[in-house]
Amino acid sequence: MVAKRNSAPLVISMGDPAGIGPEVILKAVARLRARGDAVPLAVIGDLEVMRATAHRLGNVPSPTAWTPDVSLIPIRRGLGVFSPGETSAGLTSPGHPTIEGARAAYRYIVEGAKLALRGRACALVTGPINKQLLNRAGHRVPGHSELLARISHTQLWRMMFAGGDLRLALVTVHIGLARVARALTRARVFKTIALLALHLRTEMGISQPRIAVLGFNPHAGEGGLFGDEEIRVIKPAINQAVKCGVDAYGPLAPDTAFVRLHGRFDFDAAVAMYHDQGLIALKTLEFDRAVNITIGLPFVRTSPDHGTAYDIAGRGVANPSSMVAAIDYAWGAALRRGSRLRKAA
Amino acid sequence: MVAKRNSAPLVISMGDPAGIGPEVILKAVARLRARGDAVPLAVIGDLEVMRATAHRLGNVPSPTAWTPDVSLIPIRRGLGVFSPGETSAGLTSPGHPTIEGARAAYRYIVEGAKLALRGRACALVTGPINKQLLNRAGHRVPGHSELLARISHTQLWRMMFAGGDLRLALVTVHIGLARVARALTRARVFKTIALLALHLRTEMGISQPRIAVLGFNPHAGEGGLFGDEEIRVIKPAINQAVKCGVDAYGPLAPDTAFVRLHGRFDFDAAVAMYHDQGLIALKTLEFDRAVNITIGLPFVRTSPDHGTAYDIAGRGVANPSSMVAAIDYAWGAALRRGSRLRKAA
Repeated sequence: MVAKRNSAPLVISMGDPAGIGPEVILKAVARLRARGDAVPLAVIGDLEVMRATAHRLGNVPSPTAWTPDVSLIPIRRGLGVFSPGETSAGLTSPGHPTIEGARAAYRYIVEGAKLALRGRACALVTGPINKQLLNRAGHRVPGHSELLARISHTQLWRMMFAGGDLRLALVTVHIGLARVARALTRARVFKTIALLALHLRTEMGISQPRIAVLGFNPHAGEGGLFGDEEIRVIKPAINQAVKCGVDAYGPLAPDTAFVRLHGRFDFDAAVAMYHDQGLIALKTLEFDRAVNITIGLPFVRTSPDHGTAYDIAGRGVANPSSMVAAIDYAWGAALRRGSRLRKAA
Repeated sequence: MVAKRNSAPLVISMGDPAGIGPEVILKAVARLRARGDAVPLAVIGDLEVMRATAHRLGNVPSPTAWTPDVSLIPIRRGLGVFSPGETSAGLTSPGHPTIEGARAAYRYIVEGAKLALRGRACALVTGPINKQLLNRAGHRVPGHSELLARISHTQLWRMMFAGGDLRLALVTVHIGLARVARALTRARVFKTIALLALHLRTEMGISQPRIAVLGFNPHAGEGGLFGDEEIRVIKPAINQAVKCGVDAYGPLAPDTAFVRLHGRFDFDAAVAMYHDQGLIALKTLEFDRAVNITIGLPFVRTSPDHGTAYDIAGRGVANPSSMVAAIDYAWGAALRRGSRLRKAA
């Protein structure tokens, strides 16, 4: 079992066949190959779509049929593609999404999650999907994280982002800003801090992470003058985390929390109270390199921080940097998690 | 009258005598002098405090007594200081604020505003003050902008920030984030766009400014999925601005609005719905160079975007970059405003 987990590859779900997923995966693997990396990886997707994309791009690894039961194809020799279900290649083309394509994309994620849950994949990197079409296809999930949480019966998880030296966990994500104040509870903030600390320790190799916890209001409320969420909710959650041995600091004034006084971010990671509080800083600083991570799942899961980008699909101009960063992050996390599992065994 | 306005100097209120105001003013003027600039400027403050600070620093222009009734002292020869009221030099020292110091700082602002209102100053740059002590001294004002609006009987004004190629006007500023949704009205958003467009045209010399208007919710609400402020409030305000001839765009997704896809900000300015939405991007990108501007007043007013910084006052280590930027911005705005006034005369 332990040996199997060690040798398990990282798997990448291809995402929507009509989006830029196939292209950025091929370009990213080409970049890893050029770097001389030997990350064991395979794609779960549509072999025909991957082949057509590789043909259009040129100078990328050749997609080759693969199944989890046979030896992995090293990336210097090609790119293993596991194709569960029928091909949707004839039903879809770049920039023209279809319900069939969305259904196929869903299948790739589910298969990837199953492999990861069985220890036959060390990490899952997900290509971009179309959430609206997925909904129309009958799969009512807001996104990857929610779907993976459901498949793996995970109650407590959080969305996280990383780029450059910035790592961010969000207490709330896709809800209207007017509803965030009511959604902030001491337990929610505390659990986010705790989950982030655990991720940094076990999957990032940071033994005693320093975590910045942002305030909610301008100037972190200025002593209750502009809102009391810091006093009622955030500070008590920080105190609770500190009692549990976490180096948590704050609540910090949100506007100056990300300032790089010494040329780099002062903390190992930050906890943001709402979507844009964290993502304005991250995207403004690290647009091309940002990675989306779900923490709290029983396996490592990352994705590039961009969508299907149908407007440029098939044109060969998509930037694979975020996909490269997502693979690097997932592989690093899987290695550290694996070595801890071996030690525990 | 017109000639007088042309020759009127830029005045700088010294700010709290115990803060870094005197130091950053002297260092900033030294930098302008080294650059060969001949900006006509004078300080409204405490001559003794300015002299003691200059003595401590060395290699900065010599503070010299001046009043608005005599010729200005050019900065290559010294720094004119107008001292209304009694000195507070004996009552205060760097890093140790007093009520008397706060009262004096208040006096400098009021005198500066009076000069500007009478056309005897072309612009007012304000040094940092201590709002809590000002309150204890009996002056119940949240900050410079509110005080200057009161003195000048200005109903409609907005806080604005600039740094690098980013210019930002805020619809709401110092209120709790939980109250922002209710404070956002179509009229408030529209007036902010209109006031910003007017400032860019008359004081920044941009004849047809392109203004980005940010959304309020994550992904700008994603079609009403995460909040409807974009649909109910922001989009109608943008449409109204467009009808009035303003090139206003949006509502943009807040997290990607500031991304520099082509190495620079795509718009001449942006309108942010709340404090941290704008200031997280601005401070993260341009911490040392940010300038605070009040638009809508009958005169030009800017300030450096930092506080009294008592912890480093008197140590000679304060960074004058933000004060230099505040003077540069105010001088440019005053020149353009003056030339328009002359044309109109």
